[in-house]
Amino acid sequence: MAALAEYLVFAKKLAHHAGVMMLEARQSSTFESDYKSGHELVTSVDIAVDDYLCSQIREQYPEHDIFSEESTPDLLICGENSAPVWVIDPIDGTVNFAHGLPHVAVSIGLYINGKRQLGVVEAPFLGQTYWAVLGSGAYCNDEKISVSNQENLRNALVATGFPYRKETLTELVPKVGRILEHCQDVRRNGSAALDLCAVAHGFMDAYYESVKPWDMAAGAIIAEEAGASIGHFGDIRKEWPEALNGDCLLVSTPKIYEQLASLLK
Amino acid sequence: MAALAEYLVFAKKLAHHAGVMMLEARQSSTFESDYKSGHELVTSVDIAVDDYLCSQIREQYPEHDIFSEESTPDLLICGENSAPVWVIDPIDGTVNFAHGLPHVAVSIGLYINGKRQLGVVEAPFLGQTYWAVLGSGAYCNDEKISVSNQENLRNALVATGFPYRKETLTELVPKVGRILEHCQDVRRNGSAALDLCAVAHGFMDAYYESVKPWDMAAGAIIAEEAGASIGHFGDIRKEWPEALNGDCLLVSTPKIYEQLASLLK
Repeated sequence: MAALAEYLVFAKKLAHHAGVMMLEARQSSTFESDYKSGHELVTSVDIAVDDYLCSQIREQYPEHDIFSEESTPDLLICGENSAPVWVIDPIDGTVNFAHGLPHVAVSIGLYINGKRQLGVVEAPFLGQTYWAVLGSGAYCNDEKISVSNQENLRNALVATGFPYRKETLTELVPKVGRILEHCQDVRRNGSAALDLCAVAHGFMDAYYESVKPWDMAAGAIIAEEAGASIGHFGDIRKEWPEALNGDCLLVSTPKIYEQLASLLK
Repeated sequence: MAALAEYLVFAKKLAHHAGVMMLEARQSSTFESDYKSGHELVTSVDIAVDDYLCSQIREQYPEHDIFSEESTPDLLICGENSAPVWVIDPIDGTVNFAHGLPHVAVSIGLYINGKRQLGVVEAPFLGQTYWAVLGSGAYCNDEKISVSNQENLRNALVATGFPYRKETLTELVPKVGRILEHCQDVRRNGSAALDLCAVAHGFMDAYYESVKPWDMAAGAIIAEEAGASIGHFGDIRKEWPEALNGDCLLVSTPKIYEQLASLLK
């Protein structure tokens, strides 16, 4: 725990500075936007924040590994007995960032032996810093948070997201139709990390989407430590460790988890 | 215009006080929630804000009419040569309000002879006050705003919403599927008034949904004065004046309007 406490202080410092970089970039409107793999947006701020985070981690913990959306997306990581791995998304919600919307976050998670250890999600435009350490609960701006006590699917508010690539829409659209039919409503904010934090905070009752490891690395432990049930509503690829696997991710208050998993099958 | 300027000052004062009522209610967590017509949520704060707005309007302008979601939802209004009509939604985004989410607004619109005259949308949890007066442009926190210059449907971010009543989902879900396929992504924030303002501000490139007059009474003129194209993507009921008719509402930057209207047919 001593080491984890140190890692947490470090991760919060990094997240805060990354948030300031985003605030300044939006205020001065100096950033550039581009598209990677066809239509996936990336801005010069994603790259600058990634550079900052990676260089800080390498300097402070040269023996640790880094798994980042922008610089090392193909790294296979987190086997048993591996070094601690920092899993980072410099800007989660890049489309929102480029469009001027507030749901934007930096996401920093730490994994040891393939297990979630801590997560920090900072949303500079919303003034929120979420964090959690294994076994110590979840916090927003240093106040303890917990999931809602929703037990009625019909009154459940469910967050979700849609992929950049359009190939899987044929099977995703009927799923959102079933959620809309059986739940109160759907929210689509455009940041997986903040959707996970919204479930942790009790603002949303559930969240589902297929996402990449860096999208959920920090939010998953924040939701879990706040009392959420977390798992998969469909098949997952085998090359990722389970704790970092965002395929068919489903996170919800415990009492509606099984009903949602059935709806999404 | 002299009268409109006076009405604007009055509407902004009302909206600001209504916003303070919402902030205080959330902070003290004293409000109660209930469901009207089955599963449509209403809180004691909706009622309290509605009482406040209606009593203020009646006191200041006893000769005017009021058309409100909470107190006069069935009033037929806005014929030619009628008195000025205030069209109000005390809390647009009631589900968000009850769940603790930030997308919540008070919406105040003014109509004379069935035409949009002014609108004020205040979002107390986001610190934003949007307003517009016919012919004078649109503003956020007193800074002039305008729609985005989006002209590429594939990069367009599109806001939408879903109804409390589930009967129309069968035709709505394929529409959202087509939008997801042909546009950048969809956002679902849960407040029609703020979705209209997001288009006005250039954060979103379009918004579509079938909504009630009070949901769009203020946001429609704000979007229009910011340069948005506004119309309907399907049949509309005849009993509402066109300017207050939220059936199949479509609002977007001018260059993608026709393409979106075709997609939503």
